[in-house]
Amino acid sequence: MSAPRPTTYVVRPPRGTSKVAKQHLLVAAAALITELRQLLGAEQVLVDGDLSAWELDWRKRWRGKALAVARPGSTAEVAQVLQACARHGVSVVPQGGNTGLVGGGVPDDSGQQLLLSLSRLKRLRAIDPANLTMTVEAGMVLQAVQQAASDAGLLFPLSLAAEGSCSIGGNLATNAGGTQVLRYGNARELCLGLEVVTAQGEVWHGLSGLRKDNTGYDLRDLFIGSEGTLGVITAATLKLFPQPAVSLTAMASCASLADCVRLLSLAQSRLGAGLTGFEVMNTFSLALVQRHFPQLQQALPPAPWTVLLEFAEADDAQGARSRFEALLEAALNNEVISDAALAESLAQSATMWHLRESIPLAQSEEGLNVKHDISVPVSAIPDFCERTDAALRAAFPGIRLVNFGHLGDGNLHYNVQGPEGSDAGRFLAEHEAQINAIVYDAVQDCGGSFSAEHGVGTLKLHEMAQRKSPVALGLMRAIKLALDPQGLLNPGRVIV
Amino acid sequence: MSAPRPTTYVVRPPRGTSKVAKQHLLVAAAALITELRQLLGAEQVLVDGDLSAWELDWRKRWRGKALAVARPGSTAEVAQVLQACARHGVSVVPQGGNTGLVGGGVPDDSGQQLLLSLSRLKRLRAIDPANLTMTVEAGMVLQAVQQAASDAGLLFPLSLAAEGSCSIGGNLATNAGGTQVLRYGNARELCLGLEVVTAQGEVWHGLSGLRKDNTGYDLRDLFIGSEGTLGVITAATLKLFPQPAVSLTAMASCASLADCVRLLSLAQSRLGAGLTGFEVMNTFSLALVQRHFPQLQQALPPAPWTVLLEFAEADDAQGARSRFEALLEAALNNEVISDAALAESLAQSATMWHLRESIPLAQSEEGLNVKHDISVPVSAIPDFCERTDAALRAAFPGIRLVNFGHLGDGNLHYNVQGPEGSDAGRFLAEHEAQINAIVYDAVQDCGGSFSAEHGVGTLKLHEMAQRKSPVALGLMRAIKLALDPQGLLNPGRVIV
Repeated sequence: MSAPRPTTYVVRPPRGTSKVAKQHLLVAAAALITELRQLLGAEQVLVDGDLSAWELDWRKRWRGKALAVARPGSTAEVAQVLQACARHGVSVVPQGGNTGLVGGGVPDDSGQQLLLSLSRLKRLRAIDPANLTMTVEAGMVLQAVQQAASDAGLLFPLSLAAEGSCSIGGNLATNAGGTQVLRYGNARELCLGLEVVTAQGEVWHGLSGLRKDNTGYDLRDLFIGSEGTLGVITAATLKLFPQPAVSLTAMASCASLADCVRLLSLAQSRLGAGLTGFEVMNTFSLALVQRHFPQLQQALPPAPWTVLLEFAEADDAQGARSRFEALLEAALNNEVISDAALAESLAQSATMWHLRESIPLAQSEEGLNVKHDISVPVSAIPDFCERTDAALRAAFPGIRLVNFGHLGDGNLHYNVQGPEGSDAGRFLAEHEAQINAIVYDAVQDCGGSFSAEHGVGTLKLHEMAQRKSPVALGLMRAIKLALDPQGLLNPGRVIV
Repeated sequence: MSAPRPTTYVVRPPRGTSKVAKQHLLVAAAALITELRQLLGAEQVLVDGDLSAWELDWRKRWRGKALAVARPGSTAEVAQVLQACARHGVSVVPQGGNTGLVGGGVPDDSGQQLLLSLSRLKRLRAIDPANLTMTVEAGMVLQAVQQAASDAGLLFPLSLAAEGSCSIGGNLATNAGGTQVLRYGNARELCLGLEVVTAQGEVWHGLSGLRKDNTGYDLRDLFIGSEGTLGVITAATLKLFPQPAVSLTAMASCASLADCVRLLSLAQSRLGAGLTGFEVMNTFSLALVQRHFPQLQQALPPAPWTVLLEFAEADDAQGARSRFEALLEAALNNEVISDAALAESLAQSATMWHLRESIPLAQSEEGLNVKHDISVPVSAIPDFCERTDAALRAAFPGIRLVNFGHLGDGNLHYNVQGPEGSDAGRFLAEHEAQINAIVYDAVQDCGGSFSAEHGVGTLKLHEMAQRKSPVALGLMRAIKLALDPQGLLNPGRVIV
C-alpha cells in the first residue's frame, strides 16, 4: 500500500518587503556572491543547477530557493562568510545534514537567503581519552562521531534515526534527543564546549573540555537549541563515556500506561543509571509494523502496551543479567507486567529495537498522518493519554492513534492516523489544525511541551506564538535582538 | 594556633557618580523604602540596627552598607519589589544563605543598594515521585531540600560544605558544584525548570518538570550561574534520583597525580555511573588535618597522593562490594596504587569523608592562604600541577601547597600557604597578586578555568576582564544589556 506524497510547502519570506528594499537586496546579493567566490573559490559557491539537496527538506514538506549555497571549508571561512553577509545585509540559513523535521534548515523562496552548508567542516580535531572528551567539527556526521569514539574504545551515546546523515552541528543546534536520553541526556548534556561564529562574523572560541566552569553566562547552552538563529556552531567538545561491558534488552507487556509508569519506577530504583532505554508502544503501533513489515518477528503477543527496556552495565555481565531477570520477575510477581521476553542474543536484541524503530516507517507506509513530538511529566502521561484519546475519538470517530515513544523522558510521539480506509490526504488537510489544537491544549494543561526533541523551526512557530508565555517570548526576542540586531541569522525561525 | 582574621574589604560602588545623581538616588531611595513598607509590611523592610548578617559575607572579606534589607514572602512580592526598584532606579542585590565565597551577594558600601533576601521563600511546593522531580522555593536551605527528597524515599544529590545554611536559589544562581558532580552533575544539571522575576518585575513561569523541551532559547541555563545579574530565581523544579541501596567508600595511595588519573580511568571503566566520588589530597593537605585535628584517625599512612573513592549502586549490595574490591585489587596489581583501605562500616566511611572535608578548616587554623578554585581537563592535571608547583616554589622558596579537590571533575582547590613560620597576613598582602598570576596563567595555558564552581562575584572580576575573550565578554554584555537595560540587578558583579 503506497501512501500519497505529502504536500510540499513553499517557505515564504517575510511579508511587506517593499519594491525598493527588494531592489537593494538584489544589488547586495550580486555583490555578496562575487565576494564569496573570491573568498571560498567559485566551486564552493553554488548558484546554478539543481540545488534541491539543500533547498528541499528531507520530509519533502518545505521547499525554498536559495540565493546561493556557500560551502566554507574552515571556521575562518565561515567567519568571513558571515562578515560579508552582515556587510551586505543578506540573511543566512545554516544547514547541517538537512534531516530536520520542522523545516528549520531550508531557505525561504525569496531567492535572497544564503544557504550556509557546514558539510565540509567534518574533521575530528582531537580526542582525549583521559578527559573523556572529543572535539569535532560541526559538519561531522553523527555516525562518524560515534565511530571515532568507538575506535578509541569509548562511547558517544547520542543515537537517533537520522544518525547516518545528520551532522553533530545540527544535533546541537536543535538539541537532539533520541533513545539514550534517559541515561545520558539530550545533545545539550553531551556537550562541554562550542566554537561559534556570531552574527557579526566573530569567532567565539568556547571549546572547553571542562566539566566545571563558572566564569560568566552560559553561552554554550544559549547557542545549543537556538536552531541557527543566534550564531553558527562550527565545532564542539563532546563528552565521552566508557563503553558498557554488557547491554541487555527485554520487552514486556503492560495492561495500561499506568502500569508502564510503575514499571519505569521499579526499573529506575533497581537498575539506577544502568537503565539506558525505556520505550513504550501501543497495540496499534506494533500492529502497523506487523502489517507493513510482516517479516519482522514480534517478540511478544499483542498487548495494550509493550515496553522495550535496555540495561547496560560497566562490568560484571553475569551479575547484570541476574539483576535484569530479577527486575522482570519482580514486575511479573507484582502484576505490573503480564509477560516478558529477554533477548538471548545480540540478534534478538537488534530485532526488538528494529520493531520499535520501524513504527515511523510503518506509519509512512500506512499513509499521511499528523505527527506530534510532545512531552509531559512522566506522572501525567496516563491521564494525558486517557483524556486526549477520548477527546480525539469523540471528535473524529474511527481515528487511529499511533502512540509510542520515550516514556522514560516523558516524551511521546503521539501520532494520529485517519480512520481505516479514509482518504489520508484529505483527512490531514481538513483536520490537522483541529487535531493539533486538541493535543496541544491537553499538553499545555499538563504543563507539557509541544516540541520535546524536534525543535520549532518553521512548523511550530504558530504554537510558539500561541502557547509560550509573553514573558518567555519577550526574553527570547530581547536576546535575539542583542546577538543578531540585523536579524540575519535564520530569520523567521524559532521566534518572530 | 589561632590564625589572624582576614582583612575585610569594603565593597565600593561604581566610581564617577555625580553629586546630582547621588542626590537623586537619595530621594529615590526614600520613596522606595516608603513603598516597600506598604508592600511588605514595615517589619520586612529592615533599615536600622545591625544588618551585618546580610551586609557582611561569611568569609568576612566583604562588607557593604545596604539601603535596606527587603524580605518578601512570595514570588508576587518579589515581583512587586523589583517593579518598585525599576521605577525608582534603585539597584538590587539578591541574597540567599549568604554563604558565597566570591563576594557576590553583599551590597556595596554606597548605602544605595537594596538587599533582597529570599530567605522567606522556603516552601516545598510539590514533589512528584513518579516524575522524579520536586519544586521548591529559592530560599529553602539545601539540607532541607535533601531532607524533603529523602523523606519521599528519593535522593537530591547536590552536596557541599555549606549545605546547612546555603539556599537552593543561591546554589542555582552560582551553579554550585560539590562532591557528587562526577555522577550527577553541577546544580545546572540538577534543575529542570525555574521561576524567575525579571529586572522589570515580570514573572517567568518556567517551572517545567520536563526532561525534554525544545521550544525556544534555553532561558533556564542562562539564569543559572548568572549570580543574580539577569533575574531573581524564586523557585526551581529539581531532578530527583532513586536512593542507592549501597554506598561504599575507600581510600587509596598513589605515587603521583598521573597515577591518580590512571586510577580514575580504571574506576570509570569498571564502575561506570556507580562511581559517585573521586577526590584527591596531597601529602601536605592531610598533614595539616593531622596537625590541627589529631583526633581524626588517618585511614592510610601518608603518601604523595591519597584518593577518596565512593561507589554507589542501586541494588545488589554484595555484588557491589565485590566489584569495588576487584577494582582496588586490579589497581594494586597494576601498581596504579600502593595501598588501599575499604571502609567496613558507615562510621569508617564518615571518617574518610571527614578527613577530606577537614582540609579547608585545617587551612584556616594554619593561617591566611591564597585559595584557588580552578579546573583544567583531567588529562592536563599532572602536567599543570608539576609546572605550577615548580614555578611557585622557584618564586617563593618554602611555599606550601595545599592541593586537593574533585579530580573526577578536573577541579582542584589549588591553595597556597606561605612558608612555615612566616607572617601569613604579610605574605598574603605582598604576594597574592603574583601567586594568582602564576596559577591563572598556567590554568589558561591548559585551557582551564579560574572559577570552576565558586563563581565570579566581586573577587574574580579582574580575571574575567583579563582572561575571558573579548568575544565572550561582548556576548555577555549584550545579554546583560538586553535583559537588564537599567543595570539594576547585582551591578558590578560577573561582568562590568
